[in-house]
Amino acid sequence: MAQPGDHADIALKGDTIAWDFVEGLTTEVGPRQAGTEAEARGREWSMNWLKANGFANVADEPFMMDTWVRGTETAQIVAPFPQPFHVAALGGSASTGPDGITAEVVMFRTVADLQAAPAGSLTGKIAYISHSMTRTQDGSQYGFAGPARWVGASIAASKGAAASIIKSVGTDYHRNPHTGGTQVVDGMIPAGALSLPDAANLERMFARAGGRPVTMKLVLTPQKLGKTRSGNVVGEIVGTDPSLPPVLLACHLDSWDLGTGAFDDGAGCGIVAAAARHASAAGQPLRTIRVLFAGAEETGLWGSKAYSAAHIDEPIGVGLESDFGADRIWQIQTNFGQSNPALAAKLAAATARFGVAPSAAVATGGADINISRDQKGAIIDLQQDGTRYFDLHHTPDDTLDKIDPVQLRQNVAVWTAVVQVLANEPGPIKGAVESGE
Amino acid sequence: MAQPGDHADIALKGDTIAWDFVEGLTTEVGPRQAGTEAEARGREWSMNWLKANGFANVADEPFMMDTWVRGTETAQIVAPFPQPFHVAALGGSASTGPDGITAEVVMFRTVADLQAAPAGSLTGKIAYISHSMTRTQDGSQYGFAGPARWVGASIAASKGAAASIIKSVGTDYHRNPHTGGTQVVDGMIPAGALSLPDAANLERMFARAGGRPVTMKLVLTPQKLGKTRSGNVVGEIVGTDPSLPPVLLACHLDSWDLGTGAFDDGAGCGIVAAAARHASAAGQPLRTIRVLFAGAEETGLWGSKAYSAAHIDEPIGVGLESDFGADRIWQIQTNFGQSNPALAAKLAAATARFGVAPSAAVATGGADINISRDQKGAIIDLQQDGTRYFDLHHTPDDTLDKIDPVQLRQNVAVWTAVVQVLANEPGPIKGAVESGE
Repeated sequence: MAQPGDHADIALKGDTIAWDFVEGLTTEVGPRQAGTEAEARGREWSMNWLKANGFANVADEPFMMDTWVRGTETAQIVAPFPQPFHVAALGGSASTGPDGITAEVVMFRTVADLQAAPAGSLTGKIAYISHSMTRTQDGSQYGFAGPARWVGASIAASKGAAASIIKSVGTDYHRNPHTGGTQVVDGMIPAGALSLPDAANLERMFARAGGRPVTMKLVLTPQKLGKTRSGNVVGEIVGTDPSLPPVLLACHLDSWDLGTGAFDDGAGCGIVAAAARHASAAGQPLRTIRVLFAGAEETGLWGSKAYSAAHIDEPIGVGLESDFGADRIWQIQTNFGQSNPALAAKLAAATARFGVAPSAAVATGGADINISRDQKGAIIDLQQDGTRYFDLHHTPDDTLDKIDPVQLRQNVAVWTAVVQVLANEPGPIKGAVESGE
Repeated sequence: MAQPGDHADIALKGDTIAWDFVEGLTTEVGPRQAGTEAEARGREWSMNWLKANGFANVADEPFMMDTWVRGTETAQIVAPFPQPFHVAALGGSASTGPDGITAEVVMFRTVADLQAAPAGSLTGKIAYISHSMTRTQDGSQYGFAGPARWVGASIAASKGAAASIIKSVGTDYHRNPHTGGTQVVDGMIPAGALSLPDAANLERMFARAGGRPVTMKLVLTPQKLGKTRSGNVVGEIVGTDPSLPPVLLACHLDSWDLGTGAFDDGAGCGIVAAAARHASAAGQPLRTIRVLFAGAEETGLWGSKAYSAAHIDEPIGVGLESDFGADRIWQIQTNFGQSNPALAAKLAAATARFGVAPSAAVATGGADINISRDQKGAIIDLQQDGTRYFDLHHTPDDTLDKIDPVQLRQNVAVWTAVVQVLANEPGPIKGAVESGE
């Protein structure tokens, strides 16, 4: 049975707050690329929404960042089997110029294979990495497949390649490439990702080419805009005891430009805001609940770093982040299970009825709670089901229709149950042994 | 148990012919828009493939057609909620010119609602039809939702609209618009389709706009190329008795430009060619089996009409078409169940083990067998499972990876069983009452 005053039930049966946020944001603002006027509109929209939904101390805390924007992007196989492919530039890619680069494609199975190519062996060529990714509930294959995107281009550049393309780091089979940031180095080259169907076609071409070179014309014309303004949006449900460090609930407000940033991460901001509201529905909580809608996460965690730098001397009680879609939560982990087992047990008890199992792994937090790591504070990870997350991640397909309202409600209910416990916890959250408070 | 000499078993267990065709065609040629050089490369590739696979009398029968090609295509909501949408021009669309059209969008629920708009009421505006489509096994909702694409633009033009956009006629939720032909009239206007996620977003904008106008900037710059050459590719497995009219197995070789024409209709050509090969594997059939890879189906059945015009005086024994994807066959219907019940029963018996039920409905044939209708000849429809056909139809997502090899094998096995019966049938196929032979 739910406990008296347990508002997780309300969230489970009929949360409309999280949906209202992500529906409104994706409809009235849409894509919110870091450092652009679209992200600024997203901040303004979110501040109005937070105020209308009862948050206090709503603010936009500015910071400056390096901004990169997409241009034209096309890819054509020129020989031996001419046909167009779908490509997207990776964030930080250099430009090919409007006339593009036409060059032979050299295929590598892995980043390690590319790394092993002799220096200069790729001069004037386009390096392609065929490394694939499989769906996993915990998203762990991002670590397996992600390096192709993260460092493939910089390694290819170091070998003299004219450009780099990868199989999208994704698990779908739709004609939508997955963008995302790539490491920018001196002598940066144009870097793109093919959609999964196009990558499969390229590999079939190699199999059918019988040793003939496979030649691609690649046009990518992104631009660097230099330093532009971004910002972090914050808002609070003020607690009764201002001496207690706040509960920080984070997400990021920026999104890649190709989709509308529904799953990544409009939903996360809706979830944490809804949890803050539901958890305080029975009355003012003991601790302040602060939401942080970080700016410019996708292009290098600019907002999370800026927030930590600005607030490092203001202790946070505990930090949590929602940035992995909007599907069901199935696992909880903390970094204080040893030092504060009583609180860990209380959280486990509050979430058990939602099918959330405690994990013995130590929570490390996500991209948007640098401050909790920098303060060596308490962190909780609420692990969402990521089975379909990388179908949508950084693609044009990251749109509202992908959010399942039933799963979203479970997610908000779990967050509500956790935030209710935390916001009313009088003692040090990380425990006596190594409290960050 | 299979009958001796029944090569449907081979197809079921290990057909590689159909897959080889569609894999090769989509890899080595890719998109094959009617009337373009890409379609011509498709014909050349197919003729080489037919010859290599033991077909005789392989030919490219030319015809001329009106050709239209896509240009730039973008859509932006300008007010009240600026964001970009994904749009594709419909075949036959007029051009907006490179500067595009910026106009208020007026939403209609149905073609009938649009038809009921007063004359002149849409002057300078963009008409939008919100009519949706649901997945069905038999594809019957194409008739329900298709008219928005087929005649929406021409009706909007008659009301003075500056342009027409529709919700894509499709059943997926990916960021890939569905193209397809639209009726071209005097005073034709620009006509596009939004992807389903964008259409849903547009409708949410209307709900949130509170009566403010929703304004779109639409840029579509397709071109008419005038008359260009297309052609029908034919090939035969020659029968032992040239006096008996042939069995005609049809598909179309052209595809819309956005995808690679795997499901629509590379697979169909692979299926009929594989069935012709398997059905004659035990020895030369009695009747000639002719495959017709029709040209220019998508843009107005040019190839099917040209074939009928050229060959109307050469009787066809029976016509069948594969043009509805590559999934499982679940139903068979003929137009001679009354006149030749013995043959209908033989076909039912040959396909029962594959889970194919006879239907009492009268077969009418598909787009590529105009000649059988024009000759009032025998027709058989092998109904494929269309549940996911309209997820892919006319989109960039019509790519090889969508073909399920297990379902494709069942499909080829059913075709093989049917063609084996037909190609060895000595008597008139349509029967004594109203034989087309």
